[in-house]
Amino acid sequence: MHFHVLTLFPEMIEQGMNTSIMGRAIERGYISLKATDIRDYAANKHNKVDDTPYGGGAGMVMQAAPVYGAYEAVKEQIGYRPRVIYLTPQGSTFSQPMAEEFAREQDLVFLCGHYEGIDERVLEEIVTDYVSIGDYVLTGGELPAMVMMDAISRLVPGVLHNEASAEFESFQGNLLEHPHYSRPEVWHEKRVPEVLLSGHHANIEKWRREQSVIRTAERRPDLLEKADLSAKEKALADRCLAEKKLAFTQEV
Amino acid sequence: MHFHVLTLFPEMIEQGMNTSIMGRAIERGYISLKATDIRDYAANKHNKVDDTPYGGGAGMVMQAAPVYGAYEAVKEQIGYRPRVIYLTPQGSTFSQPMAEEFAREQDLVFLCGHYEGIDERVLEEIVTDYVSIGDYVLTGGELPAMVMMDAISRLVPGVLHNEASAEFESFQGNLLEHPHYSRPEVWHEKRVPEVLLSGHHANIEKWRREQSVIRTAERRPDLLEKADLSAKEKALADRCLAEKKLAFTQEV
Repeated sequence: MHFHVLTLFPEMIEQGMNTSIMGRAIERGYISLKATDIRDYAANKHNKVDDTPYGGGAGMVMQAAPVYGAYEAVKEQIGYRPRVIYLTPQGSTFSQPMAEEFAREQDLVFLCGHYEGIDERVLEEIVTDYVSIGDYVLTGGELPAMVMMDAISRLVPGVLHNEASAEFESFQGNLLEHPHYSRPEVWHEKRVPEVLLSGHHANIEKWRREQSVIRTAERRPDLLEKADLSAKEKALADRCLAEKKLAFTQEV
Repeated sequence: MHFHVLTLFPEMIEQGMNTSIMGRAIERGYISLKATDIRDYAANKHNKVDDTPYGGGAGMVMQAAPVYGAYEAVKEQIGYRPRVIYLTPQGSTFSQPMAEEFAREQDLVFLCGHYEGIDERVLEEIVTDYVSIGDYVLTGGELPAMVMMDAISRLVPGVLHNEASAEFESFQGNLLEHPHYSRPEVWHEKRVPEVLLSGHHANIEKWRREQSVIRTAERRPDLLEKADLSAKEKALADRCLAEKKLAFTQEV
């Protein structure tokens, strides 16, 4: 997987990704990351890439030509028209299935906007995917691009080794993960649940699965509809939801 | 606003945030950012902070004591029990109203997990808010913490100046932004819409508002319910939704 980032802040991308799991994956050759400075494609000697918006209004708009120049440089280097993701609050909301789909590409280009936005005409010409990482307002596209690259990298074969293979696998089967405990057995007078010390694998599995159901019902009931639950688990989830509703009513 | 980040990768936080809007806000004294290395609070000479999970299973669990030590250091420094945000896929989904609420705090502590997770007992003891930035699986809590700090910083008085005051204001009134255009008037044979060159402010405003309604209907119809639309705008949105449905039916 080759990531190409078109940005006004290439050093932010390079520094921010170096120490994460991506840094190790790059060293090992599973992925590559190159940030292209849009400013290098400005056609004026001041390296200016933005101008006021037609029709007036606050803020500056990134102009079409430098963005297109940076895109063309990547296209020429790889020899085909790649998928181009524009990070924007106007996009489809990023999700794990979307990460899985992107992870099958050979190259991915991320276009990071700043200021008020980017001239619509260049977006129409080069962007294939409009993506948002969530319903909140950010300064620019760099952090969302880093978030997407992190999520996608983990799915590229070879990137995750045993050390990390299970980390944060929190949406498998649409249930949240059970709680985790490690040494010591007693910390601040809190004991590890006895079942986890029993060595009885079937009971441990049963307890963990129940905890996942309870936790999902308590914290993310919206996920339960899509979860594959047994009749008994469904009853457990319904009890939790009923208790939650009761607690809420009593608070009010 | 003082941000405190408890992490195993302090340099990732410090480097990644330096070049964004936060870097300038820090220089100007509107916010501060301090990353505390959890490893500095390990009680063993190898600075080990994780161990295998009780009950077995893949991955390692971050232990309670070093996390608690790092938290206590921050608490002692600021002199009160602060709000502690644990970045986890199990949390409530981050949103703009949540950013507005967090922006009213004096201090915010972000706890970043890695590996399989963190010992449940220390979470119970120190965490006040469980937050997820979206339904996708990431390597650790660092990038989500950076995303949240970026969104929250923008709302701290003084951080945004005119240069940036309007950027990406894409959820105001629950409508997406209209398209933007800047020089030149013709680029790749595409002309800027005539109305934007007319100098007629009322018409420009009308066109922009319509574009916002159309775009929201096309890309994020889920936002429309909460948007404050006139009867005419509602009719426009309904027409777009009907056309979209028709186009979809024809594709199938």
